[in-house]
Amino acid sequence: MKQYSIKDIAKLCNVSTATVSRVINNNGRFSEKTRQKVLDVIEQTGYKIDNNARSLRTNITFTIGILVPDIKNPFFADLVQKIEELLFTKNYSTIICNTDKNEQKEKAYLRMLENKKVDGIIVISGSYQHGFKFQSSLKEIPYICIDREPENFHNTVFISSNHYQGALDATNYLFQKGAKSPVVVVKKVSSSIKSRIDGFKESLKNHSLKFAKSRHELKLQSQSSFAKFLQKNPSTDSLFAVDDGIAMELLKYLKNLGYQVPQQIQVVGFDDVPAANIVTPKLTTIQQNTRKIAQTAVTSMMHAINKQNEKGSQFLIPTKLIIRETTK
Amino acid sequence: MKQYSIKDIAKLCNVSTATVSRVINNNGRFSEKTRQKVLDVIEQTGYKIDNNARSLRTNITFTIGILVPDIKNPFFADLVQKIEELLFTKNYSTIICNTDKNEQKEKAYLRMLENKKVDGIIVISGSYQHGFKFQSSLKEIPYICIDREPENFHNTVFISSNHYQGALDATNYLFQKGAKSPVVVVKKVSSSIKSRIDGFKESLKNHSLKFAKSRHELKLQSQSSFAKFLQKNPSTDSLFAVDDGIAMELLKYLKNLGYQVPQQIQVVGFDDVPAANIVTPKLTTIQQNTRKIAQTAVTSMMHAINKQNEKGSQFLIPTKLIIRETTK
Repeated sequence: MKQYSIKDIAKLCNVSTATVSRVINNNGRFSEKTRQKVLDVIEQTGYKIDNNARSLRTNITFTIGILVPDIKNPFFADLVQKIEELLFTKNYSTIICNTDKNEQKEKAYLRMLENKKVDGIIVISGSYQHGFKFQSSLKEIPYICIDREPENFHNTVFISSNHYQGALDATNYLFQKGAKSPVVVVKKVSSSIKSRIDGFKESLKNHSLKFAKSRHELKLQSQSSFAKFLQKNPSTDSLFAVDDGIAMELLKYLKNLGYQVPQQIQVVGFDDVPAANIVTPKLTTIQQNTRKIAQTAVTSMMHAINKQNEKGSQFLIPTKLIIRETTK
Repeated sequence: MKQYSIKDIAKLCNVSTATVSRVINNNGRFSEKTRQKVLDVIEQTGYKIDNNARSLRTNITFTIGILVPDIKNPFFADLVQKIEELLFTKNYSTIICNTDKNEQKEKAYLRMLENKKVDGIIVISGSYQHGFKFQSSLKEIPYICIDREPENFHNTVFISSNHYQGALDATNYLFQKGAKSPVVVVKKVSSSIKSRIDGFKESLKNHSLKFAKSRHELKLQSQSSFAKFLQKNPSTDSLFAVDDGIAMELLKYLKNLGYQVPQQIQVVGFDDVPAANIVTPKLTTIQQNTRKIAQTAVTSMMHAINKQNEKGSQFLIPTKLIIRETTK
C-alpha cells in the first residue's frame, strides 16, 4: 500500500496542503464541500495523519488577535471590520479584544491571545501613558501597531494615518476661510492626538501666530466650561476638534449657546465617522483611509508570519480633507 | 515537608483557588501584584502543581466567545462592549467574532471558538434563514442566544428585547399623534425584525386598519423607489422604520424630496443609536435596554457554566418609547 503524504492528499483533492492541514486540525476557513472531499480522500487513501501534518497544528492556528481600545468608537469599529474581512479572505479568523483603554485589561487580553496561540497580534491605539511591551513566553508572536507608538520601533511595523499632515491641512483650511484665531479642542491625549495637535501648532506658526496653550488649546469638559472659554476668548472664530466625537459635542454646545456655525464659528473634525454626514450642519472633517490602513496591516501581518522581515518599517497613510457645511 | 494543596496556596495568598489556578495556567484576569504573590508563595512552599490544578486548565479557560453579525452597527457594538465589561468583572476574557451575516464565516468562527476551548458562546442576532445549529465535538459548550431564535429552544437560553411590544408602542404612538395611514419600512428581515413587523400589524388591527403589504409595507431600496412609493400612496402620513439606520436614511430622503417632518410625515425608529439624538430633527425611537440584555446574558452564562440549568428559558426585556422631534 502506498504511503501517502499530505502533499499527495492535497493533490488528489486539488487543494493546497494548508487547506488539508486546516481540515485535519479543524481550524481556519474551508467550505463544507472541501471538508468532505478531504475527509473522503483521507479515508480512501488510508492516509495516516503524520507528524508533519500534526506539527502544523502547533505552529499555526490561522487566527490573528486584534486589541482595540473601544469597539463603540465608529472609526475603530470600521477599521476592525475591514481588517477582519481582509484576513478572512486569507483564511485567517480574527479574535477581537476590547481593552477599554485599560492597562490591566490589555495585559489580560495579551495573555489570553498568547494562550490561544494566535499567529499574530494587531494592536490598535490604546493608552498613551503605557508603551506596548510584549513579551511572549510561548512562541514569538509577531505584532503590528496601528496608531500606537511602540516602545521599540525595531520590533514591529508601525502603521498610522498621517495625523500631523491631516491636522495641518484642517487648520490651514480654516485660515484659508478667514479664520484669525483658531483653537484646538481635545479630551484625552494619545500618541495620534499628539501628532494632530502638533499639526495644528505648525499651521499657526506658518500663519505667524504664536501658540499659547491658554488661548489656542481647550480641554473640553462640559458646556459650561466651554461657554466660559468663549467668554474669556471672544475673538475665537474657529475650532479644530481632534476627533469627530468632540466636533459633534461642540456643534451641540454652539447651538445651545446660540452661535451660528459656520458664520460666527467654523468647526473642523477628524476621522469622518458616519454621523459626520448626518449632523446639521454637516461636519467638515479629515477622512482617514481605513481601507488602506487595513490593507497595509494585513499585508504586513502576512509578511511577518511568513518571516519576510519588515520590522522597523513605518507606514504613514495620507488623509483627505472633506469639505461640508461647518466651514465657510 | 508538608504537602501543600491549591487551597493552602490560595489561603496563604489570601486569594481564591480560582485565582491561583488562573496564575498557574496564565489565563484570565489577575494583577501583576497577585501574580507575583502567588508565584512567590508557590516557590516558598515548594508546592507542586498537582493534577487537580492542571485539570482546571483543560476544563476551564475563562474565555467566552461572542458571535456578532456586524460590529459596525452601533447597537451591537454597545451591547458587545457592555457584555465584555460585565464578563471581565467576573474574570472572563471575551473573544469577539464578527460574522458579517455570513453563514460560512459563522461556521468558521464557531469552529475556531471550539478549538480555542471557550467556556461558553453568546450568539447575537445573525441571519434569519439559517437556524443556529451548534454541535460541539470537543466538549459541550453552553450557548446563549440574543435576538437569534435558536432551532431548538430547549438547548439554550433566549434573550431578546420585546420587539413586538416595542413596535406596537411605536405604531400606537403614531396613531395617537393623528396618523391615519402608517407604513412599516424594512430592509433585511431577521427574527427580531419579523417581531417588529408583527407588532406594527397588531397596532393596525387595533385601529381597525386591514394590513395590505403593498400599501403598508415598504422594502427600502433607494430614494427614487421611495419617492415612487409616496407618489403611488399619497395618503402616507407616517413611517415606522424597523431600525434607526433605516429611519435616518428616510429622514435624508424626505428632506431631499421636500417633505416636512413631522408636519407632513411622522417618523419613528427602533434601537436609539447615538446618532438618533444628533440628527435634525431628532429621532423619536424605541430604546432597547442594552444594559439589561447584557446583564441577563452574563448571568445566564455564569449559570450555564456552573451547570445551573436554565435551558429552555426565554427572557423578554422591555423597551421604552423615546419621544423626540420626528413625531407631532
